[in-house]
Amino acid sequence: MSFYKHHVFFCLNKREAPENCCACHGAEDMQQYAKKRIKELKLSGPGNVRINKAGCLDRCEEGPVLVVYPDETWYTYVDKEDIDEIINEHLVNGRVVERLRI
Amino acid sequence: MSFYKHHVFFCLNKREAPENCCACHGAEDMQQYAKKRIKELKLSGPGNVRINKAGCLDRCEEGPVLVVYPDETWYTYVDKEDIDEIINEHLVNGRVVERLRI
Repeated sequence: MSFYKHHVFFCLNKREAPENCCACHGAEDMQQYAKKRIKELKLSGPGNVRINKAGCLDRCEEGPVLVVYPDETWYTYVDKEDIDEIINEHLVNGRVVERLRI
Repeated sequence: MSFYKHHVFFCLNKREAPENCCACHGAEDMQQYAKKRIKELKLSGPGNVRINKAGCLDRCEEGPVLVVYPDETWYTYVDKEDIDEIINEHLVNGRVVERLRI
């Protein structure tokens, strides 16, 4: 009995250059975009999807990263098209997006 | 194959009084305490435990809350003794602490 069917955490951590960090790659914008899309698709809330901000998930070198629980699926992404694919494939249809998986 | 055996997210969201919020109940201090204890116990890192900050987990009225993934176990807590019990029972021994479960 999941409180959220898919609970998504975006790493929003910032580090100083030349260190890599998720915030350096537009993580905040992408988290806001995902949240908006899930709301538009009427998928947000208990029993369904939650898009969350998180502190450093400690996979900085592979970033930007997000993780989908309880599925335990980790993704990287570049742009809104990648986020859309994760939403449409994984969060809507339950199919892992292998090309973005880390 | 879990990247983290237990991935713990503390809701640190702040809301204005009279709204309830996790930050109003010392969530930041408790997250820092948990992180310190896990480090002292040498349980932190890939394959083991990660203690994370999170934005609003949207269970404000039941707060303060944390969630342990991939176990999908939600807890509330009051003080360091509760955090110690969650660490010692759940994170170390894999036993759910029913009295703090929500």
